[in-house]
Amino acid sequence: MKTLNVGLIGGGFMAKAHSLAYAAMPMFFWPAPALLNRKAIADANLELAQEAAQRFGYEKAYSDWRQLIHDPEIDIVDIVTPNHLHAEMAIEAAKAGKHIICEKPLARTSAEAKAMLEAVEAAGVRHMVAFNYRRTPAIALAKKLIEEGRIGKILNFRGTYLQDWSADPNSPLSWRFSKEIAGSGALGDIAAHVIDMARYLVGEFDSVNGLMRTWIPERPLQQGGLDRLGTVKSAGDVPKGKVDVDDEVLFMIKFDNEAIGSIESTRNAHGRNNFITFEIHGESGSIFFNYERRDELQVCFADDPSDTKGFRTIYTGPSHPYGDGLWPIPALGLGYSETKIIECYDFVKSIMEGTNCSPDFRDGYQIAKICDAIVESSEKQAWVKIGS
Amino acid sequence: MKTLNVGLIGGGFMAKAHSLAYAAMPMFFWPAPALLNRKAIADANLELAQEAAQRFGYEKAYSDWRQLIHDPEIDIVDIVTPNHLHAEMAIEAAKAGKHIICEKPLARTSAEAKAMLEAVEAAGVRHMVAFNYRRTPAIALAKKLIEEGRIGKILNFRGTYLQDWSADPNSPLSWRFSKEIAGSGALGDIAAHVIDMARYLVGEFDSVNGLMRTWIPERPLQQGGLDRLGTVKSAGDVPKGKVDVDDEVLFMIKFDNEAIGSIESTRNAHGRNNFITFEIHGESGSIFFNYERRDELQVCFADDPSDTKGFRTIYTGPSHPYGDGLWPIPALGLGYSETKIIECYDFVKSIMEGTNCSPDFRDGYQIAKICDAIVESSEKQAWVKIGS
Amino acid sequence: MKTLNVGLIGGGFMAKAHSLAYAAMPMFFWPAPALLNRKAIADANLELAQEAAQRFGYEKAYSDWRQLIHDPEIDIVDIVTPNHLHAEMAIEAAKAGKHIICEKPLARTSAEAKAMLEAVEAAGVRHMVAFNYRRTPAIALAKKLIEEGRIGKILNFRGTYLQDWSADPNSPLSWRFSKEIAGSGALGDIAAHVIDMARYLVGEFDSVNGLMRTWIPERPLQQGGLDRLGTVKSAGDVPKGKVDVDDEVLFMIKFDNEAIGSIESTRNAHGRNNFITFEIHGESGSIFFNYERRDELQVCFADDPSDTKGFRTIYTGPSHPYGDGLWPIPALGLGYSETKIIECYDFVKSIMEGTNCSPDFRDGYQIAKICDAIVESSEKQAWVKIGS
Amino acid sequence: MKTLNVGLIGGGFMAKAHSLAYAAMPMFFWPAPALLNRKAIADANLELAQEAAQRFGYEKAYSDWRQLIHDPEIDIVDIVTPNHLHAEMAIEAAKAGKHIICEKPLARTSAEAKAMLEAVEAAGVRHMVAFNYRRTPAIALAKKLIEEGRIGKILNFRGTYLQDWSADPNSPLSWRFSKEIAGSGALGDIAAHVIDMARYLVGEFDSVNGLMRTWIPERPLQQGGLDRLGTVKSAGDVPKGKVDVDDEVLFMIKFDNEAIGSIESTRNAHGRNNFITFEIHGESGSIFFNYERRDELQVCFADDPSDTKGFRTIYTGPSHPYGDGLWPIPALGLGYSETKIIECYDFVKSIMEGTNCSPDFRDGYQIAKICDAIVESSEKQAWVKIGS
Repeated sequence: MKTLNVGLIGGGFMAKAHSLAYAAMPMFFWPAPALLNRKAIADANLELAQEAAQRFGYEKAYSDWRQLIHDPEIDIVDIVTPNHLHAEMAIEAAKAGKHIICEKPLARTSAEAKAMLEAVEAAGVRHMVAFNYRRTPAIALAKKLIEEGRIGKILNFRGTYLQDWSADPNSPLSWRFSKEIAGSGALGDIAAHVIDMARYLVGEFDSVNGLMRTWIPERPLQQGGLDRLGTVKSAGDVPKGKVDVDDEVLFMIKFDNEAIGSIESTRNAHGRNNFITFEIHGESGSIFFNYERRDELQVCFADDPSDTKGFRTIYTGPSHPYGDGLWPIPALGLGYSETKIIECYDFVKSIMEGTNCSPDFRDGYQIAKICDAIVESSEKQAWVKIGS
Repeated sequence: MKTLNVGLIGGGFMAKAHSLAYAAMPMFFWPAPALLNRKAIADANLELAQEAAQRFGYEKAYSDWRQLIHDPEIDIVDIVTPNHLHAEMAIEAAKAGKHIICEKPLARTSAEAKAMLEAVEAAGVRHMVAFNYRRTPAIALAKKLIEEGRIGKILNFRGTYLQDWSADPNSPLSWRFSKEIAGSGALGDIAAHVIDMARYLVGEFDSVNGLMRTWIPERPLQQGGLDRLGTVKSAGDVPKGKVDVDDEVLFMIKFDNEAIGSIESTRNAHGRNNFITFEIHGESGSIFFNYERRDELQVCFADDPSDTKGFRTIYTGPSHPYGDGLWPIPALGLGYSETKIIECYDFVKSIMEGTNCSPDFRDGYQIAKICDAIVESSEKQAWVKIGS
Repeated sequence: MKTLNVGLIGGGFMAKAHSLAYAAMPMFFWPAPALLNRKAIADANLELAQEAAQRFGYEKAYSDWRQLIHDPEIDIVDIVTPNHLHAEMAIEAAKAGKHIICEKPLARTSAEAKAMLEAVEAAGVRHMVAFNYRRTPAIALAKKLIEEGRIGKILNFRGTYLQDWSADPNSPLSWRFSKEIAGSGALGDIAAHVIDMARYLVGEFDSVNGLMRTWIPERPLQQGGLDRLGTVKSAGDVPKGKVDVDDEVLFMIKFDNEAIGSIESTRNAHGRNNFITFEIHGESGSIFFNYERRDELQVCFADDPSDTKGFRTIYTGPSHPYGDGLWPIPALGLGYSETKIIECYDFVKSIMEGTNCSPDFRDGYQIAKICDAIVESSEKQAWVKIGS
Repeated sequence: MKTLNVGLIGGGFMAKAHSLAYAAMPMFFWPAPALLNRKAIADANLELAQEAAQRFGYEKAYSDWRQLIHDPEIDIVDIVTPNHLHAEMAIEAAKAGKHIICEKPLARTSAEAKAMLEAVEAAGVRHMVAFNYRRTPAIALAKKLIEEGRIGKILNFRGTYLQDWSADPNSPLSWRFSKEIAGSGALGDIAAHVIDMARYLVGEFDSVNGLMRTWIPERPLQQGGLDRLGTVKSAGDVPKGKVDVDDEVLFMIKFDNEAIGSIESTRNAHGRNNFITFEIHGESGSIFFNYERRDELQVCFADDPSDTKGFRTIYTGPSHPYGDGLWPIPALGLGYSETKIIECYDFVKSIMEGTNCSPDFRDGYQIAKICDAIVESSEKQAWVKIGS
């Protein structure tokens, strides 16, 4: 069984999630497509890099991410940094001939994403963008049911991604609120996941028409260089900084295949924590998913007898996609970890089998174009067609 | 205690719902603002009118609705006919000096609605349009919490009205699928209820931007002149007729007060029966309502302690609006009947107290203008401002 | 169409619920088995009786319930008084040859219930005990599915009836807390409904084994002779009275047909308002019901394909029991009113057709024996067999 | 930072879950109490042991578990074998001076459990029994709220553990259906988890009174020596073996502190997958938990204003127990993995700090005594006191 060496650039909770996946993937999917060796981790601060190596189980620590990329032992480069660094790193890694998994959104703009795509295609490496939520088994089940025609032709898609960790104006100014670093706000950070699901389940976007808002225009600056998500609030009289990205985005969609839809994302939805939902109506059935109850998929079939027709609450398990590799009975419990373990499995499988990943940088680029079109639509107050 | 005489024009399940309310209102709200006497009912077919009189407890039956309107004993005219008759009847009743309650939508177009509004205002009678769902106590509680500032400034509104009784292409061609009779499809029949809630809870609309679709373009003609809703399907080879109204509508909203929102209504949502929902995010809280579980309002307050913050599922009862008149404990059970009993109470109270109803024909007219703007927006594929 | 004259004894919210049903039943179920005339109402206080007659639509008012019973115009006697009066009134009505509907529990003890049963059987009149909750269409659907064998042989039944209107020790001492008047507490008042459902859906009880508790041993006395349920709390220093009935009961059941089960009822369940639930596991399926969401029945079928097996949330409507008479589409909304309208329909139909009601006084007597056995079991701390 | 060496005995999905925890614990809880080294794994079949070592990341493989126990490098022995081996292995490990974590139930009988407890106490090692479900953060939050008095004196506890993976009579005869190997059926395998929660949250048991059933008395024998859980069904005419343990258990509880309760567990609940629920009513509030939606705890406080009182759906996150170590926002998603990571953290912390674990072998022994009492109660059909 082959072993692939991983080099991870970045910290934060994504380093935790990805490192867990590298350790755990073969435990779940066995025989594994390959074993994974956590070889090196990079952080600009060497001391932090060394601590992260110990914590996350990597052999080496680098303070220079270029060194990690060019370390000849490294097979896979995993980029979990803030968004503004994705393009430079991924292009360098591609040139170095490394397979790449990059956190979402792929880039700040479609121009950046395009350059990244060109680089990986030129290099002939495998590439994946880490829209992990679509790998929830319940969503993979939705995909399977749709492909099998179980709900017929799709008429519409209605999605949400609602959060409240930064709904308090006193929650700190993370880099996620800076256009320079993040590219956009709720759009790229959370709505992009639902755009990914809509493309995956329904099809390509023809055009969009949206509204963007920044309800909270400034937030307390963070102390000490660390980046905290908003659940920790600043006390007292802290200097504030400007938020120059959206914290709410709402848009309508026309799909290429006649279906229509809408997506809403806001960071100001008190009581919604990680409320990723979609409902799909087809000619012969409906599907509803809510990530906050992610073990479940709700499905209604039009041809059920009229006295027993209704949404079925299906708990995913061994009978469903990825079921052989996960837990032996449904509702034993899927969490964030499992989405990342599955993502890792699919990525490594595509490397070993020489097949395309999904979603890859091409998908990431297409989503970046959709995000750009939403921004343009919101500015022009008009429908904007997605360039092909 | 004064007694008001009611004359009801029309049949179908609305005759049942309204007649029940006339019988039951004083049982619930006591002392009642007035007692109600079911005096006369009209149907073009005299035999049917007489049977309806026996069934629904009216003293007299008319085959000519004009005779009913001009019956000097009648104080209140209640119009529960298909939409194309509303204007003529209401204008005639206004001229006859009768108070009027009219089913929704008020009219097929804003032009018709305007004429109706002018007639009732000229006559100085009380007028109400029967958007009964907003009278669900949980929605009245939402209104109260918003007015008390409990969720702060409203940022957005997200509503749905999804049904499936006609999702099967073999469900019959009700008058609700004919533009000549109904004016519009899902828009006026169901979305209008959610527009009413949005205006009631958030405020006046500035502009809209929408999409309308007719997914099922023809349906089996109904036999025997009766109008059945779609749960009874035609067998075999029945001649079909054209559907010339929308069965799906989706639109975005800009409110006058800066809030934004969206509403989606479709008749093709398998598994959704009467799925009237809304979610409102305010600066300091959120509200969620689902009519399919109408005893409940879900509310989240931003200032709850972080370890016990979350949506509260509040069952409406004696501590909530209309609670004194309804059932003695929460969750004893509110149904369609109770929404109509409350509606009747508010209407009679406004007559006796000489105050405006809400929603009245002015509201009905405003909603008709919004509906017209949605149609225009869908045709032009652009934002359309609501005329004032 | 025949008209039956109703005489109602008692006040409170049950007078409202039953009077509404008499007015509305033919509106829903048409052609009706008979029309109903609200002929007379009795209350010890003549003034209150007269006011109730006006409010609830009765022609005459009596201060002496015996006069009402012996009024030759009366066909049906409806008893909605506190429990201690049921036996005397029902026996008198039976002797007078009147059909009888009596509120639940039928009596304070099985001895009382037995005397009532003997009286109605001797008189040959129709008799019904008003366990209205079992008439929720979703429960009638459960019954139908079980009878059709859709969930196979029943293995167990798990029921609850949880409330909180009197969970506050300062809620007033209603007659429901007095053994002399009520017979028992949570047992007869609420658990009895679930016992009725268990017998209806699963079968006859063989034996029971239970625990009873009185957590709140005294409560503020009520002022002014009126009986209020507990949501209105006493302020300040009100004299208190003793509670001599249970406020929690929990018991296990062995059914005659091998199934086992348990029922729990408590009045001290903060947050549970009218939480009547049951779950039934059969060899080939499961059923779950929650009255707080009473439009829905949840059903799981063992033989569904493993990838789409799960509880179906079925909203009752025209395709389900009583559906023709109720509302034209599911989830339009069923409330307490509808359970009473259906109850009225079934009672009147049994009178006109000369068939037995279900549940009748025989059922009421059997339930009283079960309640007596639970009390005995709790005292002896042992299994007690139900006498036949 | 100290490193502890782990030796794991056994395979199956528990080997996966525990190995993942050893790899991931320091990634989550940092600084970790200690690092963990997966040193050795044992399986009677050396080839399987070697494969497991590769899959789960252990350095060495043993075919003899005694060798693993006596390997001087091993600090912690982790026992995830079928139940009949727990006692022998744990006693041997205790004698060898190793810290021990043992899967639940601790043993087949209280006699076995007692011997294990005596061994670990004599040896002075740390010991934990792996009732992992109680480590769900929502349950830890319930514990915290109860300890802070937020729901007042506890009146009752109502728990369930319902599954359906073996509800089909054709699901294979796992060792879990053999008394010789498992000790008991639904009782020890699943009800024991809820007994653990009841003791943890409410307090010690005084006595129990139960019913046990074996609805499915025989099942197809497993082929090829592998043990599969029931979701894979045998085709055709497979020889069957006898089930000699319960597949349903239902019992009432009297707690030492006056509270009462009930627990029901069945393996025949079609549609319930891993339905671990409890509801607790206190004098001033209620708590509801359902593991199938494990990110959530539902809590109702009696002293909330009457117009906004209701169950709050709290999603656990950084503000709740273990929140610092888990994911940065609520509802990112907790699964089975996280319960095991937390369990590992608490166990290692107790080793390093020299404090007692909870639940330890003393708890495991107490639960075994309760299970024995339930068996005795079901045989005698009477209340049985738990020996102290």
